[in-house]
Amino acid sequence: MKQNTRLSVFIPDSFLAETKDLKLRTSKIGVLGRALAVFEVDDVVVYKDLTVQDEKKEGDGDFIAEVLSYMDTPQYLRKEAIPIKSELRHVGILPPLRTPHHPSSSEPKMGEYRKGFTVKRNKKGTYVDIGIDQLAFCKEQLTVKKIFSFKIEKLSKKEVIVTPDEPDDIYWGFKTLSTNKGLKNSLKLVNPDLVVETTKYADTIDSIFNELKSKVENSRSIAIVFGGPYSSIGENLESSWDLVKVNTIPNQGTATVRTEEAVISTLAIFNIL
Amino acid sequence: MKQNTRLSVFIPDSFLAETKDLKLRTSKIGVLGRALAVFEVDDVVVYKDLTVQDEKKEGDGDFIAEVLSYMDTPQYLRKEAIPIKSELRHVGILPPLRTPHHPSSSEPKMGEYRKGFTVKRNKKGTYVDIGIDQLAFCKEQLTVKKIFSFKIEKLSKKEVIVTPDEPDDIYWGFKTLSTNKGLKNSLKLVNPDLVVETTKYADTIDSIFNELKSKVENSRSIAIVFGGPYSSIGENLESSWDLVKVNTIPNQGTATVRTEEAVISTLAIFNIL
Repeated sequence: MKQNTRLSVFIPDSFLAETKDLKLRTSKIGVLGRALAVFEVDDVVVYKDLTVQDEKKEGDGDFIAEVLSYMDTPQYLRKEAIPIKSELRHVGILPPLRTPHHPSSSEPKMGEYRKGFTVKRNKKGTYVDIGIDQLAFCKEQLTVKKIFSFKIEKLSKKEVIVTPDEPDDIYWGFKTLSTNKGLKNSLKLVNPDLVVETTKYADTIDSIFNELKSKVENSRSIAIVFGGPYSSIGENLESSWDLVKVNTIPNQGTATVRTEEAVISTLAIFNIL
Repeated sequence: MKQNTRLSVFIPDSFLAETKDLKLRTSKIGVLGRALAVFEVDDVVVYKDLTVQDEKKEGDGDFIAEVLSYMDTPQYLRKEAIPIKSELRHVGILPPLRTPHHPSSSEPKMGEYRKGFTVKRNKKGTYVDIGIDQLAFCKEQLTVKKIFSFKIEKLSKKEVIVTPDEPDDIYWGFKTLSTNKGLKNSLKLVNPDLVVETTKYADTIDSIFNELKSKVENSRSIAIVFGGPYSSIGENLESSWDLVKVNTIPNQGTATVRTEEAVISTLAIFNIL
């Protein structure tokens, strides 16, 4: 896959349906979040699994998205940016991503990119917490109490000046979205060139390796969609998208493959396509 | 990879070093055990990570092996075959493997293979619990209180006759071994034709894909070895084995890859070699 291809992963809101314990639910999302970062996924979209009939029960989409979003937020911004909630009480167990947008040093460097939280604003610009000893200053009027990406433009003992900017050659984490909509309507929000549907009922990936490789090379935006614990993907995506259905785990030894297992396995293979 | 290639996976006993909570330790082994079954691994060997200096602390090798072994044991034999231990108090959270050697039905079928626990013995043979309503009988003198594999040879209302046998065309679970020895000495116990060392400092798998594929095709027994959370593999395996070092996760987005992430990613790729 080319470095500049936009990669989105679609996860059903039924992802946690078989896990009741909050600590284990949090940990399971942790496995997913790590996989997204290891394989440099740009967007993760949590869609409504329409094959799940229970209408009385709220889906877990928003919770999954909140935990993923927490993981993607640099440690130094979590307290400020993420409201305390009882459901998030086990986030302490989540493994760190150790990505470039989570710098471990509080020493600013000239030219460095950092995520920052807009703390307050005056007529001259906005004060930003970028995880260093002092607030940085941005000469633009930004919405306060939000996270943006910045580049350090000037650095002196007195002040640190930043401008809104994002690197384009460094992996900069994943964006998370919970749509509360079915898969088709969720895909419309991203509008990829190519949709890859993972299912054990499709051709195995080794049998279509070269065809898939060439499709992937010619796409600027790819969405890989995964089903939930109870069934494959229920919606028919054929007519709306350039679609490849593929079985990324030929000859699986187990009756079923869990979503996080399918995600890691599939991303590991796409990473070398 | 050919169906009849013997595949072993080597895991360091430092696998759990960063996880203190027993429930999460159990869950992390669960992720590993599932991966072994999904990708039809034959042997998992837990070796002593010699890069870890702390001599005062016992490694987790035996615990890791016990939980993996529990996962591989069919549900109907767990109570009989596995002694109760405080350290195993969270095994209830482990995901089921849903492999052919874990039949969900208690209805025996003629010609079927089942794992069985030898309950008692007399001069004529051995009574075996194979997870059906009655004890099966085997006309051989077997060690009691052990698990063996059996084939159902005769089936009537009065009796079920079994013989020791294992299928060779169905995945039959993984064998677990904790060696309490370093990697080299542990490899000697399996004696593979080919050793694959996974490390981010080696050539990327896409750059040696065809060379690796041909080596794998010509091997009857392959060992894939993984390092621990603190460092790559410390021992030099070069002189003792036909060795390939490979980076199975090119351009990783995170500073480090966790062992279970490396295991799933690597097995997913070897599965399509």
